[in-house]
Order: sequence, then structure tokens, then C-alpha cells
Amino acid sequence: MIFLKNDYSLGAHPKVLDALIETNMTLADGYCEDEFCYRAADQIRQLIDCPDADVHFLPGGTQTNMTALAAFLRPHHSVISADTGHICVHETGAIEATGHKINHVPTEDGKLRPEDIEEVLIFHEDEHYVKPRIIYLSNSTETGLIYKKGELLALRKACDEHGLLMYLDGARLAMALTTEGNDLSFKDLPKIADAFYIGGTKCGAMFGEALVIVNDQLKEDARFLIKQRGGLMAKGRLLGVQFEALLKDDLYLQLGAHANRMAKLLADGIRAKGYDFVIPPQTNLIFPLFPKGLVAELKEKVMFEGWPYVTETHEAIRLVTSWGTEEREIKEFLTLI
Amino acid sequence: MIFLKNDYSLGAHPKVLDALIETNMTLADGYCEDEFCYRAADQIRQLIDCPDADVHFLPGGTQTNMTALAAFLRPHHSVISADTGHICVHETGAIEATGHKINHVPTEDGKLRPEDIEEVLIFHEDEHYVKPRIIYLSNSTETGLIYKKGELLALRKACDEHGLLMYLDGARLAMALTTEGNDLSFKDLPKIADAFYIGGTKCGAMFGEALVIVNDQLKEDARFLIKQRGGLMAKGRLLGVQFEALLKDDLYLQLGAHANRMAKLLADGIRAKGYDFVIPPQTNLIFPLFPKGLVAELKEKVMFEGWPYVTETHEAIRLVTSWGTEEREIKEFLTLI
Amino acid sequence: MIFLKNDYSLGAHPKVLDALIETNMTLADGYCEDEFCYRAADQIRQLIDCPDADVHFLPGGTQTNMTALAAFLRPHHSVISADTGHICVHETGAIEATGHKINHVPTEDGKLRPEDIEEVLIFHEDEHYVKPRIIYLSNSTETGLIYKKGELLALRKACDEHGLLMYLDGARLAMALTTEGNDLSFKDLPKIADAFYIGGTKCGAMFGEALVIVNDQLKEDARFLIKQRGGLMAKGRLLGVQFEALLKDDLYLQLGAHANRMAKLLADGIRAKGYDFVIPPQTNLIFPLFPKGLVAELKEKVMFEGWPYVTETHEAIRLVTSWGTEEREIKEFLTLI
Amino acid sequence: MIFLKNDYSLGAHPKVLDALIETNMTLADGYCEDEFCYRAADQIRQLIDCPDADVHFLPGGTQTNMTALAAFLRPHHSVISADTGHICVHETGAIEATGHKINHVPTEDGKLRPEDIEEVLIFHEDEHYVKPRIIYLSNSTETGLIYKKGELLALRKACDEHGLLMYLDGARLAMALTTEGNDLSFKDLPKIADAFYIGGTKCGAMFGEALVIVNDQLKEDARFLIKQRGGLMAKGRLLGVQFEALLKDDLYLQLGAHANRMAKLLADGIRAKGYDFVIPPQTNLIFPLFPKGLVAELKEKVMFEGWPYVTETHEAIRLVTSWGTEEREIKEFLTLI
Repeated sequence: MIFLKNDYSLGAHPKVLDALIETNMTLADGYCEDEFCYRAADQIRQLIDCPDADVHFLPGGTQTNMTALAAFLRPHHSVISADTGHICVHETGAIEATGHKINHVPTEDGKLRPEDIEEVLIFHEDEHYVKPRIIYLSNSTETGLIYKKGELLALRKACDEHGLLMYLDGARLAMALTTEGNDLSFKDLPKIADAFYIGGTKCGAMFGEALVIVNDQLKEDARFLIKQRGGLMAKGRLLGVQFEALLKDDLYLQLGAHANRMAKLLADGIRAKGYDFVIPPQTNLIFPLFPKGLVAELKEKVMFEGWPYVTETHEAIRLVTSWGTEEREIKEFLTLI
Repeated sequence: MIFLKNDYSLGAHPKVLDALIETNMTLADGYCEDEFCYRAADQIRQLIDCPDADVHFLPGGTQTNMTALAAFLRPHHSVISADTGHICVHETGAIEATGHKINHVPTEDGKLRPEDIEEVLIFHEDEHYVKPRIIYLSNSTETGLIYKKGELLALRKACDEHGLLMYLDGARLAMALTTEGNDLSFKDLPKIADAFYIGGTKCGAMFGEALVIVNDQLKEDARFLIKQRGGLMAKGRLLGVQFEALLKDDLYLQLGAHANRMAKLLADGIRAKGYDFVIPPQTNLIFPLFPKGLVAELKEKVMFEGWPYVTETHEAIRLVTSWGTEEREIKEFLTLI
Repeated sequence: MIFLKNDYSLGAHPKVLDALIETNMTLADGYCEDEFCYRAADQIRQLIDCPDADVHFLPGGTQTNMTALAAFLRPHHSVISADTGHICVHETGAIEATGHKINHVPTEDGKLRPEDIEEVLIFHEDEHYVKPRIIYLSNSTETGLIYKKGELLALRKACDEHGLLMYLDGARLAMALTTEGNDLSFKDLPKIADAFYIGGTKCGAMFGEALVIVNDQLKEDARFLIKQRGGLMAKGRLLGVQFEALLKDDLYLQLGAHANRMAKLLADGIRAKGYDFVIPPQTNLIFPLFPKGLVAELKEKVMFEGWPYVTETHEAIRLVTSWGTEEREIKEFLTLI
Repeated sequence: MIFLKNDYSLGAHPKVLDALIETNMTLADGYCEDEFCYRAADQIRQLIDCPDADVHFLPGGTQTNMTALAAFLRPHHSVISADTGHICVHETGAIEATGHKINHVPTEDGKLRPEDIEEVLIFHEDEHYVKPRIIYLSNSTETGLIYKKGELLALRKACDEHGLLMYLDGARLAMALTTEGNDLSFKDLPKIADAFYIGGTKCGAMFGEALVIVNDQLKEDARFLIKQRGGLMAKGRLLGVQFEALLKDDLYLQLGAHANRMAKLLADGIRAKGYDFVIPPQTNLIFPLFPKGLVAELKEKVMFEGWPYVTETHEAIRLVTSWGTEEREIKEFLTLI
């Protein structure tokens, strides 16, 4: 079977694994108060050129999103998100379970725009409504698209005008920052977002995410909140070790670039065969539209997921590449269509 | 000023007030464990022809909705509601504050239909999503419409097919059950809904709602939940006294019928003057579409609220009648347009 | 039956009831945005000599406690309370249901002291523990005692030293401020507490409490939180009307003084008959220790509640007087012992 | 420095690490739906002789406790725990953050007894109080003690009499089941507890715990709840791989036995030097009482934590051994006292 189902089905990138092996019998203090976490946090502060940022390490993405958002909000505050956002659909109501409404915004392509924010705010005029307080973005998005720097700056401007915070889910940040057409860099992030996370799980780590809090007003007592929501690992050192390895010699971005390269190869091949896409391919998630018969055939030989877009004769599917995808697999796939 | 702004701006209907006055110096046990509450609960059980129903009295509508829904659900359960539903908009995220997502369903007219439920369920297939567990209806709706018996039975069927519960918000049940074209009666409710509330605040009471739990599986420990959410009044007797008075000699339905009659007079008059409605008038909330100039003029002499429907030349407004609206006021309004 | 069971078993004091009757057919805007609430809030600000205080009206005590505390806290914050505090025992976990731990402090007599606070803080040193953030006091306490001004100032000092807020539950504030030995006045409260409530339900109102927020940092968006927790009444005017009547011509304090006077008569009589108390009588809740046989006899003729203090031969009971208790009843009771 | 500070400061036991290395590049489905997790779950079902048990894998202990308890309870339910229980102190109010009160029970030695349960229940008589619904035990306890089989059966009996569930935190289950005097086995657990977890983090795993749900009524939709609380790992396979390795050839129990052996060596040595213990040593956490001067000296050469027991001349400290502690370290420590 060719595997194009997701980007979290291998273990760790070998260099990350090596770092875990090497440090396995080193004693370290618990709960991310160890030299590995301290060093990795420093590396991140340098990478993003923001010496005052607070960096926390958590085991997973849903955990990170729910912990951060709940930490930043008062009980009547809501989160504005594209209705395809991970927190809207794939987190089993984790945000609501912390007490907060999400204002789901229907979008054309999974990207939030300033006018979407305005439209939510018009309908939230007084204390009979929740008070939108933060916007949630993912970059790259669940639809495989990226935000260009200008787009993020426009969103930032809208946030500033309306007293909103901005939180960016970077589960696939490695792919977002390395794809063709991207003009955003690590250093831009703390200038735009109040907080964001650098995703490890889908970008080469065995597991783990690095939450970066830039806005001073959101920093207080973050460790209490992480502990309370179950995200402060006893062996936090595991996360420090992994991020140190991932960020060394740009490995993180190289792995994102590799996933994107494989996706581009795949998309170019699909297009060359005359097929189209329901969303223009940009990163490692692509959405070709195939005849229904072909989709049925592919299921025999390829692992992939569906996508809710169907016509009478065709249906869209989701293909995902990762740091571990090999060119050989892409070529093999292309022979099947 | 003519008052057509809402149906909760007077105190109690005089007969309800009299009952409160009469019983004011009678000693009664606390927390709805008194003869007044017991008698009122019995009256309700007779009225709805459901001797096994549990009846609880709470001070307000948001309180009742949030308490009941949170009591019926496990943490991963969600509520399906038309996106105009009171719980979606006007309760400051009270449901989410108890930990539950609401699946907002866009509808044409504020009424939920079986196909709306199906559409939500398609996208909630496994444990990565919340699990829809209950549907929320209001009758009459926030758009002034009623559900006919057949419509409710169709929804019930959809619920049964999908293992869903049904909860009905009866803030304006008096109006729903007495308007032209209605074929639903008190006795039908326990056969259709798992739980519902008979609204007092907007239907003649000084304040208070009667929550009726029909489904045996939802009854356990309801008083704990009501107390925990702050809805178990020390002087619960106040609620029993009021409902006894409201339900005596059909006063409750008479008050609803009066509000509807005033609204019909108003709607007929407006239509006679050549104006149209953005939602067909059915109960005590009506939504005429007026030229913008006229709306501006009306603001000087009438208290009313806007409605989010605007064209280049016209805008819709919301007019509300109540048990206290006088024919004189309607006539006066009609002279203004 | 002589009624000495609680102080919330009558309706409203006649003057409060009259005010409700008089204003019953006056139209008023909803949700406490009406002239009655505005005037009552002003009266309270004058009474407490604190022109900048925010005043909100809520229907009940549990509602007020849970709404206020949840509004003031971040998710990892806890509340320090004497373990006999109303929020610890008699609110069905309402505070915890909003996500916050209460640090229960065992005390000798139901009163919190600075050393109790210190003791809690010693064990809450870092992010593995909740962070105590506010102390909860009731005055008078559930044990019928009052805090003297000096005691409250000492607690305030402890709060200031440790970055803690102070919240005072005034369910029985009328009794606290009018009993023999009290040296605290309304005007002292905003100088000592960050927020408190003036209880209506047990002090002459039909129902309702007035939440006063003194600390500017706790004021923001309070109405959102009150609405979200179900405490913003559609007919908020009912609360404004009642507090206006209660505060006119010192009625509120007179009613508290009456309850205390009746309790003193009762306590003096009991003592004169040679019985003792498990807590020294101070306000309208008193706790005599009677022979078990006598308690059994009293049950036939008096309504009262037990108290968890039992010896081999004796048991304590709780006797409560109210604004409605008559001297005749006290005398009758005394003939029984 | 000699390390006797805790049992989670190394990485994984070499055999567990080897299993992670070996399977690192094997593709596996996400979210614990993979062959490793399926096999490990089967192993556990065999180990505990309970073919119908549900087994779920989560990344950490606080996560597991809060997810399981919140999944099992309705909003008004509380948890009874010894006040030294991990959930009472060291989880930053995680349980309360899910909405549930913990009834803290003071105990002599950190072990809960049937009479402690009775005492809580006496004070929780009606809907004004939370409803205790589950007891929380840890075995071994935070005080290093174990429950004997008879003790657990007595607690079970108390639970059955009062309609309570039993949940057992097995963070240190490997130590509990292998220490001198223990008569409990894996196979006894599902006969006694409704749910429990087999701790990995402190017993040889890199990280991770296995939650076992025995009671059929608690099984429904557990995966939804785990996902919602952030505990369903994308690469759940990591947990399956580790538990498979840990449970192979009894490694799990061997590691527990080793930690206990090292602790016994340490305790015997300390006692031989004439020192006493504030809690009798039983597993890998021991609490010697040393002169204050000695404690100060030890701090220079040994990493350990304090314990809140101090006399004028002496203070207690906590010493912890683990699967990685070497005999050499124990001997070295003993030369220091």
C-alpha cells in the first residue's frame, strides 16, 4: 500500500530519535525545568528573534490549543475561527469543554479574512452575546493553504482595531514556512501573533509542540494552566530534547520542505494526467478531484482519506505527504491514475 | 410612547400578583418543597396528561435552558439548534460555559427540520467530533413561528432514528398553543418531547418557568443540578404560587391568545396599509418591512427593536405584543404608518 | 407550630410587597437597565459611601456567589473559605462547577482568621497546586457570628500581603450590621472588601441580592458573566424596586435588628432556663444544647433544624429568627423548655 | 550528586527504548487504532484476566485521572479522596477544572478507609450538597504505602453499600504489586475496582499510562472524552509499543521490584544507623527523620525533596528510588549519614 493518509504515522525523524537515545539515561529535573527544555526554548527565542517570548512544551496539538485558548480568555470570551479550523471540528469540543464558544465562520477556502471578523462582531453587540476575544488561525490550514505575510498583517490590523488577540496553530508550520510562494518567516511570527505554536508531531518529532507566548499580558501563570489541563509532562525533558534536535541545522524547515516537494511532485503529476483540484495545491495536503471509479480503484492500493466534495461523477480525496514520504511512492501513485 | 419592544416589561398579571399578595405571609418550606409548588406541579401533570412527569420551577429562561441541557448531557455531547435559537445567540454562551458545543444550523426561517439534523450528523462520525445528543427547539420560535404537530412528530421520528433527545423551550408556549393554525396542545408535548419548559416570565408571571421532564432517564437528581447552577430558589414557593394562579381557569392560554390577537390586529393593519413582512406573522412577534424614513419616524413615538434585514430602501423591524398590550395602542400605532 | 427553622419562609416585607404592587404595571426596560435599578444602585452607592462602586442585582445567593467568584478568577485560581462556608457545603459544588477549587479551612467557630490563610498558602507553593486568589467570608456567618471591624481589617492586611482578593457574602448582612457588639457599618465595607453582596432574600425582600464590586479591576464585563450564569433577570426591575423599598428609611437595618432582637429574647430565655449554647449567640442563628428528650418533645411543636453536635445526653439544635418572627412566638417557645 | 528525588527523571528503560527504535519507521494508524495498541491492550486483558475490559492509552497521569473521573461523573458528583491524594494536591485543580468537587479526607497515613467514606456521606444528605459518587485511591500511595487485598475488599464493600464507584491510580502500581507484604495481584484489580490505570511513566516507560475500564457502564464513548481532554495522541502507537515492551516477560513487575529492593536497602541502612521514619517504609518512597544539621549536609551531595514534618531538632525528608537506581548509589548515600 502506498501511504498518503496523513503526516503523523511514522515515529520520529532519525535525528530526533538519536537525540532521545543519546539522552535517555541522563537524569533531568521534571516538568520542563531541565537543561534540554531551557536550551530548546532559547533556540526558539533566537529563531523567532524575540528574546522575551515565553516558550512552553506540550505533548500534543489539541492539548496545546485548548490550554492556550482557555488560559487567555475570561469565561464570556469566544474564539473566532474558520469553520474548517481544527478546533471547530476535530477536537471533540475541547474548547467548549473549557467553557468557551467558538464563533464558526464559513469561508470559501479555510482561510479567515478581516471581513469575516467584522461580520462576527456586528452580531455581538452587548452582554447578551459572548464577547469575541481572540482569532484562531492555522498555518498552513486544514485545507493545505498558507497565509501570506500581507494577509496576516491585515488580520492583525483588524484584531488591533477591535481589541482582539491572535493565536496561530502551527501544527504544520514547517510546511507553511517552506512552500513556494510563502513570504513569511519565523521572525515575523512574534510581530504578528500574540501566541502561536510550532508543531512537532507532524513535522519530524516523535511527539510534542512548542507553545510560544509573545504578548506579555498572556504570560502570567501559564505553567499552572498547562499543568491543570494535563499538558505538563513529568518527563518534559523529552520535549526539550526533541526540539533541540529538530531546530538544529534547520532540520525542521528541511523536513517541511521535503513534504512540500513530495506534494508538488504529486500534484504536478496529477495535473499532467488531466485531473483538477478542488483547492489549489500549496503545501503537503492536496485535494484532487477524481472520477468515482478511479477513487474506488485507488482504495485498493493507496491509503488516503476522503474529502466532503462530491459531484455526480467525481469525488475529491485528500492526499498527504510527510517528511518520510519517498519519491518512489509518488511515482508509484502516479502510475495508478 | 407606544410599547412594542418585548413581552417582559410589565410585572405580573393582576391575578398572579393577587396570588402572591394573598400568600405573602404564609410560612412555607424552602426550595420548592412546599404545598404551592406541589399543587402547581400536579396541575401541570394534569394539564399535560402525564402523571409521571417531573416538574421543577426555576426563576428564568436562560437558567432553565442551561440547567436542563447540562443535566441531560455527558461532556462530549452537543446540542443541535437553529442558529437563531435563543441558546445560540442571546445567552452569552451559557450552554458552552457548561462545557457543551452547540451545533448551529442555518435555517430559512428559524425552524429546525429533520433534514437539518441529518446534515449535522453526517459530519459527526466519530470520536474526533462532538456527539450530537439533543435537539433544541423553541415554540414559538424567536422568529415568531410555530411548529405544527406534524412537524414536531417528524422531528421526533428523526430523533428516534438517530438516538437523539428533544428539548423544547417554551418561553412563549402560551402564544404557540393559541395562535391561528396551531394544532398542538399541552397534552401532545409529553408524547413528543423528552423535556420542555412552560414559560412564565413572558406569559403573565412576575417571573419563573416550569421545567417538565418526561423521559425517565433524564429525571435522576435534577434537583442537584438545579441547585448547582443557582436555579433552586430559597423561596421556591413564589414560583408555585404563580404557576397555580397562571394555570387556574386557563388564564395562561388566555394571556397567550390575547397577545396573539393584538399581534394579528397589528399585522392586519400593517398589511392593509400596503406593507409586507420578512417573516409571515403568526404569533406575537411580527417583522414588518418598512421604508427607512418611516422607521426613523417611528423611533420617535414607538419603542421597538430592529431586525437584521435591510435593503437599500427598506428595513425590517420587530414588533412584539404581550398579555398587557391594549387595543388602543395598536390603533395608535396604525395611525403612524 | 412555632416556626424557628430559617429566615426565608415568608414572602416579602409588606413595604417591599407594596412597592412591587405599585410598580407592577409600569413598563420598564429589561435586564436591570431601568430607572428602579438605577435608583437602587445609586442608593447603595450612597449608603456605602462609594460613588464608583458597580452594583448588580441577582435573584439568589448561590447564583451571586458563583457568578461573582467565577468572574473574578482565572481557571487555576482557588477560593479560601472556612469549611462551614455556604459555598463549601450548601451550594452543591456550584463553585467547583465553574472550574475552581475551594480550599476548605477547618475553623473553630466558622470564622476565618489570618493564620488560616497563611496555613493554606504554605502548601500552595508552585504550579503543581492551585493558586489561592480570593478569600470568601460570610457576615454574619453560617454559625451566627459576626466579624468585628478589626478582624476584617486584619484579614484585609493578610490579603494585601499575599495578593489575595476579599469577597464577602452578605446573605445576612442586615443582621450582622445591627447586632450588639457590632462596630462595622455599610461605609466600612468598600474600604475592606473587593466585592460583597447585600442580601435581600433573608432580610425582607421577596427575593434578590445586590452584588457590589468595589475593586476596579473586577468590574469589567460583569454583566456578561451574570447573563452567562443565568442571573440577569429579564424583569430585573423587580430587584431594583425591592431594593429601593428595602433601603428607604433604613428599613433594611430595622429588619435585621428585629431578627436579632427576637433571637436575643430567645437566647436570654433559654439561658435563664439553665441551658447553654454550643456557639455563643450573637445574631439571628442560635445553637442551644438541649437534653435529647427535650429536643424530641420540641419537634412536636416547633419547626427547627438540627446541628451536628451531639453528646451522649444532649444535642444541639439551630433556631433562627427573622424579620417576621413575633415576640409571641418566642414566649410560646420558652414555655416549652 | 546522588539522585533520590523522584522516579521519573530518566528516559525509558532500555528494552522499552529498543522497542521504540525498532518500530520507529513502521507506518501505523493514528489515535491508538494500530496493531501495537491492540496487542498491548490484549496483553493487559490477559494479565488482569478480564477479557471484557476496555484499555485506553494516555500520555500522562494527571491527564488520565482527570479524563477518567470526568468521564465517569455527572456534574453534581464528587470524588472522595485522601487529602494527600495526587488529585487533591499536585494536579493544580485539574479535577475541579472539569467541574467536580473533591471531598478531601484527612487520614493518618494517606490511606483511605471505609470509615472515612462513611464520614463524608453523613454530611452529604441531599441536593444542597454534592453527591459523592466515586472514591479515588492510589496504590502505592503518595506516602509510599500499599493497600492489602483485604483493605481494598473492605473499601469495595463500602462502595457497594453506598452506590459508589472505585477508581485506582496506579502511577506506581509496579511497586505496589511487588513489595514485601503485598498480597494483591493484577488479576485481583478488575474484581475490585471499576477502573484503574497501570502507570508507565514512573515504572519504566518513556511516558504513558494504560487506563483500564472494567465496569461496563463506564465504557461508553470513552474515546470521545479522551480526545476532548487532549489525551488521545496522534501517534498513539508510541504508547502501544511501550506497553508491549514493558509487559513482555514481566519486565514491568521486575522494574517495580528493583525500585523496592533499592528502597529496602536504603531503609535498612538508615535504620541500622539509628534513624527512624515518619511513615513505615514499604515501597520506593521512604520518609526518614533526620537531625536538621544532617539534612543540611545531605543537600550538598544528594538530590531529594522535603516532607512536611518538622520537629524542633529533626525534619523528615522524602527519598525515592526507581528502576534506574543503582546499589552503588544507595551505599554511597549510607556513608553520608
